[in-house]
Amino acid sequence: MAPQIITTIAKLREAVRAIRAAGRSLGLVPTMGALHDGHLSLVKRSNERCDVTLVTIFVNPTQFGPNEDLEKYPRTLDADLEALSELQVDIVFAPSNDELYPANFSTFVETAQVAEPLEGECRPGHFRGVITIVMKLFQIATADVAFFGRKDYQQAAVIQAMVRDLNVPIEVEVCPIIREEGGLALSSRNRYLTNDEREQSLAISRSLRMAEQLVCNGERDPTVVQRAIRQEFDTAGIDRIEYIAIANGETLEPAEQIDEGTVALIAAFVGSTRLIDNCLIGQSIAD
Amino acid sequence: MAPQIITTIAKLREAVRAIRAAGRSLGLVPTMGALHDGHLSLVKRSNERCDVTLVTIFVNPTQFGPNEDLEKYPRTLDADLEALSELQVDIVFAPSNDELYPANFSTFVETAQVAEPLEGECRPGHFRGVITIVMKLFQIATADVAFFGRKDYQQAAVIQAMVRDLNVPIEVEVCPIIREEGGLALSSRNRYLTNDEREQSLAISRSLRMAEQLVCNGERDPTVVQRAIRQEFDTAGIDRIEYIAIANGETLEPAEQIDEGTVALIAAFVGSTRLIDNCLIGQSIAD
Repeated sequence: MAPQIITTIAKLREAVRAIRAAGRSLGLVPTMGALHDGHLSLVKRSNERCDVTLVTIFVNPTQFGPNEDLEKYPRTLDADLEALSELQVDIVFAPSNDELYPANFSTFVETAQVAEPLEGECRPGHFRGVITIVMKLFQIATADVAFFGRKDYQQAAVIQAMVRDLNVPIEVEVCPIIREEGGLALSSRNRYLTNDEREQSLAISRSLRMAEQLVCNGERDPTVVQRAIRQEFDTAGIDRIEYIAIANGETLEPAEQIDEGTVALIAAFVGSTRLIDNCLIGQSIAD
Repeated sequence: MAPQIITTIAKLREAVRAIRAAGRSLGLVPTMGALHDGHLSLVKRSNERCDVTLVTIFVNPTQFGPNEDLEKYPRTLDADLEALSELQVDIVFAPSNDELYPANFSTFVETAQVAEPLEGECRPGHFRGVITIVMKLFQIATADVAFFGRKDYQQAAVIQAMVRDLNVPIEVEVCPIIREEGGLALSSRNRYLTNDEREQSLAISRSLRMAEQLVCNGERDPTVVQRAIRQEFDTAGIDRIEYIAIANGETLEPAEQIDEGTVALIAAFVGSTRLIDNCLIGQSIAD
């Protein structure tokens, strides 16, 4: 079924009112388009939980830094709509920049703590842009549940902090990472990779699996695990590493010792493409 | 009728759900307590427009600067409830600090532009605290209309900018200033004034009436009006003036020439009490 495509806030509010009047529950899947199976897994999860699924497609300029890839970020609306038409998506909201950021726009949401390390350090202002647009979409869609991928682990944590702190009446569900067969976490930016770089990038997920295995075998020292990951990167020839963090999965502060809530997070450039990935390496401790 | 008193977010959400389920409209009157006839006029307006009226009473710590009057701000819950019991108020939400600002709270809303001059300069961080708590109350109450007094002219403008920019699904109605017979704008802080100071403070509203009259008589030069106001303050012996602004009523930028949208805004100390007041001095031009 082809989804209804809406480009204005007023029309979307109208559609949401009709959904509410019919007593139907609403799931929201915010995306920047260039959809892959990771996004589609969020849509499927929304289908499972909600009567109606709304997908938003908007490349949000305020979350890109001045030297980042806003200009070249893939915009593939036709292909996106085709992919969505094979699933049960009721509405696609694909607004213009001016619709969401009219002249005189000057309000932002910022969260400290969980937004500060890692991506927060590498990409100043990134999370401010992310949670501002997410807050706007939450206010416009007034959905019951919003779905985000765990691939952007810290983003999900920041959004959850915002929802908690500002009492936003929405449930946030964070869904599993979807990977290619070789292990590479799906990302819209993977299409920037050459074949050689794609091969090289496999070291990222490989190093995380290895880290998980080390913990499974009893290792509890973050620096040992971190060193092993770095070794894997050295071997693969990935030398532009932004961070390899072994952190508390809730606060994202460096873990002093690995426990069941520990997450390993990586950001690195492969060629000119910045990739991120993560793994809840402490999960075996809970089992 | 005595209102239902609620102190937790969870209970308030429950009450709001019941109101919604009954198909009733909801008006929100956010206050810091120490209620006076200005607040009560907002309640009456909500009664006129909405089926159910919710008054919140919370002295919001994040909007007070380190050297401001948070500690001594009047807290008069019993008297407030008595005043409200004479009106049609269905719910009073009077939460604790911990209920609204639990440990690890770290998210704030900030707006630039209209929040920057005047109060923004005199009280750094004030509007950040205001719109953060207002946003939280909007998210918890999910009211149809929220009522604010025009006495806090810039506050109302900042809240309107926030609602517009973040697409918050609520209507903000700004209601007229309520004054004592002598002209003094009602404020919870008026109770700090000694009898002599109360007398002296009348110069504030007197100067605004005079400014309005000057414009009515054809004056269009902001500096002339500003000087006349200052003269009034000199005569009254008020020498600690924070600002006397003749500004565009929407942007709050200094007016180059007085027109129908011009507002005069004043902040001054009378004794140790900081008072603010304002007047839409250009209204006669529109008539």
